[in-house]
Amino acid sequence: MPNIRILTESELRNVVTLDLDAIKCVEEAFHALATQDVRMPPILRLDIEDHNGEVDVKTAYVPGVDSFAIKISPGFFDNPKLGLPSVNGLMNLFSAKTGLLEAVLLDNGYLTDIRTAAAGGVAARHLARKDASHAAIFGTGVQARLQLAALALVRPITTATIWGRDIARAEKAARDTSRDLGIAVSATDDGKAACDGADIVVTTTPARSPIVQADWIAPGTHVTAMGSDAEHKNEIDPALFARADLYVCDSTAQCRILGELHHAIDAGLANANSRQTELGQVIAGSAMGRSDARQITLCDLTGTGVQDTAIATLARQRCDASNAGTEIVS
Amino acid sequence: MPNIRILTESELRNVVTLDLDAIKCVEEAFHALATQDVRMPPILRLDIEDHNGEVDVKTAYVPGVDSFAIKISPGFFDNPKLGLPSVNGLMNLFSAKTGLLEAVLLDNGYLTDIRTAAAGGVAARHLARKDASHAAIFGTGVQARLQLAALALVRPITTATIWGRDIARAEKAARDTSRDLGIAVSATDDGKAACDGADIVVTTTPARSPIVQADWIAPGTHVTAMGSDAEHKNEIDPALFARADLYVCDSTAQCRILGELHHAIDAGLANANSRQTELGQVIAGSAMGRSDARQITLCDLTGTGVQDTAIATLARQRCDASNAGTEIVS
Repeated sequence: MPNIRILTESELRNVVTLDLDAIKCVEEAFHALATQDVRMPPILRLDIEDHNGEVDVKTAYVPGVDSFAIKISPGFFDNPKLGLPSVNGLMNLFSAKTGLLEAVLLDNGYLTDIRTAAAGGVAARHLARKDASHAAIFGTGVQARLQLAALALVRPITTATIWGRDIARAEKAARDTSRDLGIAVSATDDGKAACDGADIVVTTTPARSPIVQADWIAPGTHVTAMGSDAEHKNEIDPALFARADLYVCDSTAQCRILGELHHAIDAGLANANSRQTELGQVIAGSAMGRSDARQITLCDLTGTGVQDTAIATLARQRCDASNAGTEIVS
Repeated sequence: MPNIRILTESELRNVVTLDLDAIKCVEEAFHALATQDVRMPPILRLDIEDHNGEVDVKTAYVPGVDSFAIKISPGFFDNPKLGLPSVNGLMNLFSAKTGLLEAVLLDNGYLTDIRTAAAGGVAARHLARKDASHAAIFGTGVQARLQLAALALVRPITTATIWGRDIARAEKAARDTSRDLGIAVSATDDGKAACDGADIVVTTTPARSPIVQADWIAPGTHVTAMGSDAEHKNEIDPALFARADLYVCDSTAQCRILGELHHAIDAGLANANSRQTELGQVIAGSAMGRSDARQITLCDLTGTGVQDTAIATLARQRCDASNAGTEIVS
């Protein structure tokens, strides 16, 4: 049997960072989803209410890619009380030809963070105005910071505002991102004020009711909602579906159940049976993206298995090249 | 972060074998499924037709059990041409309290083999006549051998017949099991002859059309069908549903889609919406098992996540006790 490579979080952090390569990797994954016979089954979801926990398992096979990942993401929301992070997990990488396990990526959710932020960069690259320079980020956690960094890679972002319910956290995130990205970042706890003047709005929260109202979004703005990955989560006022000129999702099948689309369907503002425009189609040119600087565009990201297969394959290739990790024979 | 224990197949084989402990472990898992608020989501299934491959992901959370497994089983049926086994895989074991990864069990499918055979033992213990002494096993692979071994642990088996389409393989399996179990085992390629005089019949094949006809099964016989774990697989003539006095499955939800039940529903011999008697209910005493030596009983096993959580937890406990494996910090 071939050896299995065990890779730790620090080894993976050494080889994969949020950069244009990561964005390209995720962009190609969405392109494949739109143009190839990708197999991406519904997410396996295990709820452990006894411990305020949930686990998502995602996977996808992409023809022509030598490996496929099975990504396991536990989220246990009482962990911070124990001094532990809420979100953890790992990726298992298998040969697409033989099904043999090739690598165990003990990333504790790091690669998910990167591929999720990279998807925000891909969405902005294809849907935001080319001259977008001011971003509003809703949320103060890891994704808030990474989403802003991803925007700065693909658009000439010079200023940003970070919104948080807790202004102290928003101020801390603003200071950190300003230092890391070398741009001016302010903080607010006023959602309407955060949207004022924003060319791009990104929501990164676990909100259960809308934190962005439709009439806060001015013509010309691109909105990416990436926080909702479960039925009960909802960041965007469904009325924005009517107000937006273009709605784009990562996966119609997933967004119907988990994304902002789900709430728009419930509100009677979207058709439950229509196939929506998917990001991969815009990338591939088979669906229209932004066609006018005055349009409002809305991108709904729930996180897809094809992104996991893409980032895990990239990480493994780089670890192989640098001979990182521990080999186990089993 | 706590350390993660990496366990190889040989380390796992050292601590877990098919014995009465393994049967008890799986019996308790089915008992929990019937009596506790177990969370067992639908199987995640990835089909990779390009390489004649399929992957199943199973899991279950059992209240009171400290860990839960997520088991990944790839089956790539062109592997033998490459000198590789068709079935592989691993189990990931997580804390049920925090979702943190505790152990990676690189078992290459070994623990699945054990928990699957143990389920056959559990079925026979609760459904076969106490004096059952002659077994017929359909199939010549790993499960054929293990199922016979499991029967011998729970019933006074003195003789057996192994059926295979390829008589040479059946003869080899008969020689091996006769030697290993110290009982007389014959071989045949005639299914009707195999069933003749059998107190217990176990089918262990990937057949796509019935290999056991209903009228071959005499009164008093217990039949376990464990080969079908996919929509297209079918080992038992659906007419046996009408002929049997008692049908028991591991999971109604799974057997409706994957098991022999699925084909009986298609044939109009079972109700698609009825909850069937489950093995755990018989174990717990909340449903009737065999009540008469003349009854025909039929047990339909598709393989459940709760068995995976049970066997992985047992394996991890034993590896901890013997300090087996490699610890990784990530």
